[in-house]
Amino acid sequence: MTTLELLQNARRARTALAGATTAVKNQALHAMADALLAHTGGILAANALDMDEARGRTTQVMLDRLALDAGRVAAMADGMRQVAALPDPVGRVLSTVERPNGLVIRKVSVPMGVIAIIYESRPNVTSDAAALALKAGSACVLRGGKEAFRSANAIVEALRDGLRTQGLPPELISLVQDTSRQSAAELMTAVGLVDLLIPRGGAGLIRACVENATVPCIQTGTGICHIYVDKDADPEMALSIVDNAKTSRPSVCNAAEVCLVHRDIAPAFLPLLRQRLERVELRLDGEAARYIDGAQAGPRDFDTEFLDYILAVRVVGGVDEAIEHIARHSTGHSECIVTRNEAAAEKFAALVDSAAVYWNASTRFTDGGEFGLGCEMGISTQKLHARGPMGLEELTSYKYVIRGSGQIR
Amino acid sequence: MTTLELLQNARRARTALAGATTAVKNQALHAMADALLAHTGGILAANALDMDEARGRTTQVMLDRLALDAGRVAAMADGMRQVAALPDPVGRVLSTVERPNGLVIRKVSVPMGVIAIIYESRPNVTSDAAALALKAGSACVLRGGKEAFRSANAIVEALRDGLRTQGLPPELISLVQDTSRQSAAELMTAVGLVDLLIPRGGAGLIRACVENATVPCIQTGTGICHIYVDKDADPEMALSIVDNAKTSRPSVCNAAEVCLVHRDIAPAFLPLLRQRLERVELRLDGEAARYIDGAQAGPRDFDTEFLDYILAVRVVGGVDEAIEHIARHSTGHSECIVTRNEAAAEKFAALVDSAAVYWNASTRFTDGGEFGLGCEMGISTQKLHARGPMGLEELTSYKYVIRGSGQIR
Repeated sequence: MTTLELLQNARRARTALAGATTAVKNQALHAMADALLAHTGGILAANALDMDEARGRTTQVMLDRLALDAGRVAAMADGMRQVAALPDPVGRVLSTVERPNGLVIRKVSVPMGVIAIIYESRPNVTSDAAALALKAGSACVLRGGKEAFRSANAIVEALRDGLRTQGLPPELISLVQDTSRQSAAELMTAVGLVDLLIPRGGAGLIRACVENATVPCIQTGTGICHIYVDKDADPEMALSIVDNAKTSRPSVCNAAEVCLVHRDIAPAFLPLLRQRLERVELRLDGEAARYIDGAQAGPRDFDTEFLDYILAVRVVGGVDEAIEHIARHSTGHSECIVTRNEAAAEKFAALVDSAAVYWNASTRFTDGGEFGLGCEMGISTQKLHARGPMGLEELTSYKYVIRGSGQIR
Repeated sequence: MTTLELLQNARRARTALAGATTAVKNQALHAMADALLAHTGGILAANALDMDEARGRTTQVMLDRLALDAGRVAAMADGMRQVAALPDPVGRVLSTVERPNGLVIRKVSVPMGVIAIIYESRPNVTSDAAALALKAGSACVLRGGKEAFRSANAIVEALRDGLRTQGLPPELISLVQDTSRQSAAELMTAVGLVDLLIPRGGAGLIRACVENATVPCIQTGTGICHIYVDKDADPEMALSIVDNAKTSRPSVCNAAEVCLVHRDIAPAFLPLLRQRLERVELRLDGEAARYIDGAQAGPRDFDTEFLDYILAVRVVGGVDEAIEHIARHSTGHSECIVTRNEAAAEKFAALVDSAAVYWNASTRFTDGGEFGLGCEMGISTQKLHARGPMGLEELTSYKYVIRGSGQIR
């Protein structure tokens, strides 16, 4: 089936969810979870074929991401049940106004319709994304990476079986059968068929979407996150936050890539930082290099998402210079100021134009679960529609429903 | 100055508003209104040159739109003062969560940054758009139509004078000096410089934005609006609503273009409709033509925004067929059901996927003022970010401000 046919089928199927009650959607999620468990054998067999083909062609990290076992399939099923337990984002009355002419105008949250998701190799994204889209009342069309195609296909078949047991159209969830660039381009340009496109992946994918997408699209994920250590910082707290933000999981988008240090404390703080981050390669600006050893920062080092044990370090004159540096180099994801000075913190929070701005906490908290959303479809780094972690509410739109008694204008 | 330079200047200037208080912004709006009045002579002189050039080259309707007099300039100034009186959309705390680990996560509304607006010939849009952007804390870059360039330029110069008297950078409001297609294309693709692009204009402009914009963009305005007259409609109410929606102002996007009539009442209702809309050309499907005289509807008549005294009429079997017709032909703007039957109305409201869905009221109410927003930057027909009338809140984004005490993950 072509990508266009999948989209047209999804478009027809979505009406089955448009009026669905919360109970119907939750039962479907549990049925899909049951079906995932029942299909475990088939899913693992498909995954073994993907793994065989990937071995020797990719890194150990990628293989780890791709690998499934019974425990991981069970975790995927659990994830679907957790989504069932979350509040229904559809049908919320966001506001009600009664106008002087008697019109009652209600603003009500509604499903997007058809959500397309382009992602890479982790098979669990398949079930996570399908569960979130379904709970948000939308059909989803998934386009995963080539390396994980067999696994994703087996997972989608299981989910569709779950839908069938509930009398829901299986076309609510589908996987694009073509994993070439062509199919991604088709999703990006399917005006009128895709209500929301979410690319989840590296900078290259996001850039391709920005440049080529003609359907509504949300940029996710690229994070050049900064920690600014103010002159009024508690040094121990600053070390702990920089260490955590850099080293607890360097491959994720909310990891820190740059540390800015106030000039007044640089002579004392930088040697402590050097000592604390012994596994980390520091890339230093000229002033930082006066106080500690490290590589000289190159022209791109303050504009690179290292996703590795590398940290760019620069000395700045104060909070204004830190804000200015961040405005020039940040991707708008997450930034942090470490300080005891409330005025500096408030200035930083007001003027740093990023999705999440922290005062005395690690940037690693930018995450749907940590924010209490219960789940996450990705982290938006744009300002339109959704910013920061996207939970179920961010996967809905709204409409105005107006009740009158014959009013004319 | 090139469009790129204007955008870069706007980007620098916007920080003057990022931390501005409500009082500062409101004083600026009043100062801009005062400056408009003080510049009335210059604005009218510039408008006279635009009118001289336009005469003989355009329609009387277009000339009427373009024409300014002292009263219209005063109305523009009043409009700015009205925006000053509206609540500040920036700095609203949208939610506050305290997490078990002690993090306090506040979601706060923030300015977009730089808003670009592409519009056509009405000079008052210049001051309206600038006022709304300023109150929403954003710099704006305006790109008006060629016919109104001198008028718009004189208005923008007045507004910038107003900003100067308040010590605010005049670069917060600027007019693109080049009115060729090239400058519109530059705004559409100024990634990193434009936070939000709002095209206000005809279907051609909207299509060009959808196809070419790489910056975040909101589609506005195209409206193929439907009125479905159910078998349980009060005929007098239905006639009044169809008449109002079609003829009170046919050139606007919330005017009705299509009337769908339930088969059971078609024999009685259609002759009344024919009689009531005597000035309107009806384009009839085969079944409607059995009951009244009128032109035969052509293949495009149910997909055309006539913006004129023309109404396409079709007979349908019931609410389901009406919903299906609307799903196939609507632009997602505004639709109405006229009925006394609550179940039919609820089905229609649930399943019609448009920005505004009316039960027993004219589609002409889809308007920021009529919805109680106090103003309007346009009417979004997309589902991302804003849907329906866009007021001040819809011109803001949000960010998360997180306060910790050294939390790490």
